Amino acid sequence: MTGTFDRTDPEGAIAAMAERCSNWGRWGADDVRGTLNFLDEAKRRDAAGLVRRGVAFSLSQPFDMHGPQKGWRRRTNPVHTMLDTGTDAAAGVQGFPHGIGGADDVISMPLQCSTQWDGLGHIFDHGIAWNGRPAGEVVTSQGDQVTGIETVADAIAGRGVLLDVGRAFGDEGELPDGFAITEEQLTATIRRQGETSRVGRGDIVLVRTGQLTRARREGWGDYAGGPAPGLSFTTAGWLHRSEITAIATDTWGFEVRPNEFDDAFQPLHQVAIPHIGLFIGEMWDLDALATSCSADGSYEFWLTAAPLRVTGAVGAPVNPIAVT
Amino acid sequence: MTGTFDRTDPEGAIAAMAERCSNWGRWGADDVRGTLNFLDEAKRRDAAGLVRRGVAFSLSQPFDMHGPQKGWRRRTNPVHTMLDTGTDAAAGVQGFPHGIGGADDVISMPLQCSTQWDGLGHIFDHGIAWNGRPAGEVVTSQGDQVTGIETVADAIAGRGVLLDVGRAFGDEGELPDGFAITEEQLTATIRRQGETSRVGRGDIVLVRTGQLTRARREGWGDYAGGPAPGLSFTTAGWLHRSEITAIATDTWGFEVRPNEFDDAFQPLHQVAIPHIGLFIGEMWDLDALATSCSADGSYEFWLTAAPLRVTGAVGAPVNPIAVT
Amino acid sequence: MTGTFDRTDPEGAIAAMAERCSNWGRWGADDVRGTLNFLDEAKRRDAAGLVRRGVAFSLSQPFDMHGPQKGWRRRTNPVHTMLDTGTDAAAGVQGFPHGIGGADDVISMPLQCSTQWDGLGHIFDHGIAWNGRPAGEVVTSQGDQVTGIETVADAIAGRGVLLDVGRAFGDEGELPDGFAITEEQLTATIRRQGETSRVGRGDIVLVRTGQLTRARREGWGDYAGGPAPGLSFTTAGWLHRSEITAIATDTWGFEVRPNEFDDAFQPLHQVAIPHIGLFIGEMWDLDALATSCSADGSYEFWLTAAPLRVTGAVGAPVNPIAVT
Amino acid sequence: MTGTFDRTDPEGAIAAMAERCSNWGRWGADDVRGTLNFLDEAKRRDAAGLVRRGVAFSLSQPFDMHGPQKGWRRRTNPVHTMLDTGTDAAAGVQGFPHGIGGADDVISMPLQCSTQWDGLGHIFDHGIAWNGRPAGEVVTSQGDQVTGIETVADAIAGRGVLLDVGRAFGDEGELPDGFAITEEQLTATIRRQGETSRVGRGDIVLVRTGQLTRARREGWGDYAGGPAPGLSFTTAGWLHRSEITAIATDTWGFEVRPNEFDDAFQPLHQVAIPHIGLFIGEMWDLDALATSCSADGSYEFWLTAAPLRVTGAVGAPVNPIAVT
Repeated sequence: MTGTFDRTDPEGAIAAMAERCSNWGRWGADDVRGTLNFLDEAKRRDAAGLVRRGVAFSLSQPFDMHGPQKGWRRRTNPVHTMLDTGTDAAAGVQGFPHGIGGADDVISMPLQCSTQWDGLGHIFDHGIAWNGRPAGEVVTSQGDQVTGIETVADAIAGRGVLLDVGRAFGDEGELPDGFAITEEQLTATIRRQGETSRVGRGDIVLVRTGQLTRARREGWGDYAGGPAPGLSFTTAGWLHRSEITAIATDTWGFEVRPNEFDDAFQPLHQVAIPHIGLFIGEMWDLDALATSCSADGSYEFWLTAAPLRVTGAVGAPVNPIAVT
Repeated sequence: MTGTFDRTDPEGAIAAMAERCSNWGRWGADDVRGTLNFLDEAKRRDAAGLVRRGVAFSLSQPFDMHGPQKGWRRRTNPVHTMLDTGTDAAAGVQGFPHGIGGADDVISMPLQCSTQWDGLGHIFDHGIAWNGRPAGEVVTSQGDQVTGIETVADAIAGRGVLLDVGRAFGDEGELPDGFAITEEQLTATIRRQGETSRVGRGDIVLVRTGQLTRARREGWGDYAGGPAPGLSFTTAGWLHRSEITAIATDTWGFEVRPNEFDDAFQPLHQVAIPHIGLFIGEMWDLDALATSCSADGSYEFWLTAAPLRVTGAVGAPVNPIAVT
Repeated sequence: MTGTFDRTDPEGAIAAMAERCSNWGRWGADDVRGTLNFLDEAKRRDAAGLVRRGVAFSLSQPFDMHGPQKGWRRRTNPVHTMLDTGTDAAAGVQGFPHGIGGADDVISMPLQCSTQWDGLGHIFDHGIAWNGRPAGEVVTSQGDQVTGIETVADAIAGRGVLLDVGRAFGDEGELPDGFAITEEQLTATIRRQGETSRVGRGDIVLVRTGQLTRARREGWGDYAGGPAPGLSFTTAGWLHRSEITAIATDTWGFEVRPNEFDDAFQPLHQVAIPHIGLFIGEMWDLDALATSCSADGSYEFWLTAAPLRVTGAVGAPVNPIAVT
Repeated sequence: MTGTFDRTDPEGAIAAMAERCSNWGRWGADDVRGTLNFLDEAKRRDAAGLVRRGVAFSLSQPFDMHGPQKGWRRRTNPVHTMLDTGTDAAAGVQGFPHGIGGADDVISMPLQCSTQWDGLGHIFDHGIAWNGRPAGEVVTSQGDQVTGIETVADAIAGRGVLLDVGRAFGDEGELPDGFAITEEQLTATIRRQGETSRVGRGDIVLVRTGQLTRARREGWGDYAGGPAPGLSFTTAGWLHRSEITAIATDTWGFEVRPNEFDDAFQPLHQVAIPHIGLFIGEMWDLDALATSCSADGSYEFWLTAAPLRVTGAVGAPVNPIAVT
């Protein structure tokens, strides 16, 4: 479906799309890695060959009180406090011998507060999680008992491809809020950017919309949950067919907001996570990398995006490192 | 100094060693990256060439309530709680449209609780931080204002070298607690392991002692802060001279415990961090990688160890990924 | 039932006791206050007349890292960190005008970590909460939607009565772990202490076992969840019949541990909270008050035990204040 | 000073006022209780006699995500999460025997986020804390080592007096933001309200401005830190001379905002806490109590305001209970 759908019937559209795109059982009934199965050792080995200059980019936003969260769904910005400080050490109140002093710190934060991966336990469809499991048996108050992010702690390192849809279709490199990126536009961006942008099995696709660029300039506004450019619901087929291993964007929620139905909430998530088994990255900072890719004319690179190994997490913060 | 020192005078020994090993000013008065300056783009590019098979290893311990912390210095294990669950979604109490359900989570943890990097603001010598700055001007209750971990968010990706001192000098691959690893033993381990183990400028050196292997088998005991194998104070000269960019171990505190003075606390830290400007990794899980290296006969690999980008952090959790 | 029961059939014993003691519907189908309904304004007014000397006692344990929790069920001790400090202020790094400096702090803690009230949403019987409501409709990941502790924020102030069973039946004022306090022993304690100890409708009964006294002397050991003196399962009838408004003890779990069935977990809770609608206080420090009562020969006092007003909490920390 | 002062010289005005109002040494060099020394047992006993009806009022705002904090100084609203839920219990995933189920919860919050007491370690004057102690020796990263809130855990129970300045001087019972309450207006309010409002040694004075009433109706806006009615800097003399034990308001910061100097931050705090040793309560909800007092024509009551007993806290949340 790249065409039209009934705006008044998200439930029907989602059900139809889910049926078309389902990967349930594709890697066995016990599978917990979803589309990460596409990223095999051969692909990882080849991807390492993309390092030509040795320049590294962090694709993480800063984790601090100045982030985008405003409390919705109890998502706050990280609170970072000190257990010991240099002022204490300088004041001589730490009680250590031979002049050693130290500083320690602690953090309290939602795992979905900033640059992150959605795990496969993050979204359910009618009470069913990835691979057809009952959500209530997968994610309890104890966390994700089956598809916790720790199950993919070692896996997300491979070929990254940047699709700078912002530069391809936006004014000054930025798509407006509400802009629904279609499969045709993804394809056109690939064509425009050239051969290094081809997308295939096992790739980690990074879609830059430019919304973060705008938020950085103008303030967060409703970045966390409000209107945003993002993938159209209709790209589900492409996400499935292309056999990519993951996709990440520079927006809060990956898909276009407002969503493309009259009354809906993240319908593409409802297909992508529980049915496709796709790993989705959100709130990545792609700007410096995009500038570099544009200058080089090359949009592929080695990417390591290792989630913090929190047992049972339904998502995890990450500091993705691209090396060109 | 690889020889003897006065066990009763840690302060004098530290001062002497600090003077011999100081890198203050080496990269300018404004430097905040210390030994990461040794890891340049050429070295990073060459390191990517070490990927031969495409096998990835996470070197992170799990972040959960079953970790080693017991409350000392208010260091606790991570507390991971859910903001939304699958049981809620299955019970239909989430209030979302078209059958979508979700799970979110939150974490509260010391940044030094498990697999981590010590930042340059973590340790002071007589109230002085890295590069000669007053500790009280560097790390306040607001965090590290100068050398926060965010300053090196993009940098720690390069050549990793495993020195499996546990296998080289231990019984069954494990050094006993209190075993002080000397420069001679590091050198002998390199010689034993062969050419792929050579250590030089810009390398990230991983020293496996086997203590974590033991803790995994026997329980944590005093892993967090108690007796442990680790680097001898006398290796400071080697750490400085070898121009490595970082060093990490599978123990709580990197250096041997009890420390080698009658009354002391982490004297090697007091030289390594504020004077050498060295990045130290602790509580890494090197076992699977070590088994692989031993089987391959190759001890070098591509290593990405990107700290969580917490603004102002004096250290940070990390999920290091080695690719062979 | 003050007699015998089948140690092998907790489920049957609980069901029988629950039927005998149920207060469901007693205060209407919408009731959220349970036995707090017994504490009316007349009783509260009379209780204020018990203040004779004006001496106040805090019955709260300290909330800090030195508390009894060891991580079971992710219950940790409170982690208290500073957002600003006096050392910062003294170092002049706070940036405020005219010499003002400040200190702020933050806490992270389970609501059940120390001196507390169990709310009516804390325990369920076969998925049913107080007054017969389905547990899944009462307590979700969003908290207690019906009987959150805020519903009784203003209510718990009235007549307190101390029953010092430790002094009455223990050696040196302390009952041994595993000591099951029976109705007969409660009655005998009242008789022994005299007229000021009579217990009736609307009273807040404090039962001192002496276990905290022992833990304070010998260390926490298994105070949190291990063997303890406490109320026998057989006291459920008395708890119901006496029409008390609340009961609190100096132990972790109010009822005797190990529990009095072969394989059981807190069976008296399963009757007292969802069926009687009783408010239970745990980990109170009754020692100073008990010494005073013993010296005075008077065991009644004015008691205010106002839970922290956390919306949706299933329990809450409290600093109870007794005034004699 | 109830007259004028130089708006351009807060530092001079504060110094002069501090000298006039200092209680340093009044209760000995070791004192940690400040004005709580005024509240003795006789006064507490007499206060209990004020209970005439037995009606209890909680003066606490709700502690939840809907509070006033917006992140300034890392002050956030409380984050309350569940460790176990009724939905889990209903789903049968908790693993307990005989049908018992449970819910537990955890909170993370600044101690200054909502209804609270400022402790004596909360504010410093030029690096000096209450009773003349160096701030750096009192409050380190380990908390308040001297005047932690635990030192007054049992003390704050006595006579409360409501001064409803909002009703006395406001339109519809609300003072506008920026309204500086003077000594004259306090006195006039007392006169207007009658004999039950007299203020003297050992009293806990509650000043209602009506700002919370407005915030409840119109939304928080800048309630946390923005413009507000409150006590004039010039009332310091009255606060000192009246020998009250504590004062609390329904605003974020007790004193008028913007402050009455051209460039200042909470100058009255700088006198009241370190010099007078006064306990200040903030963000109390006085509305229901005020309505009752107005109807009764009586403005005095028994008040228990027991801070959560957090060791080393520089302030603490509280659920104050007034009983009329």
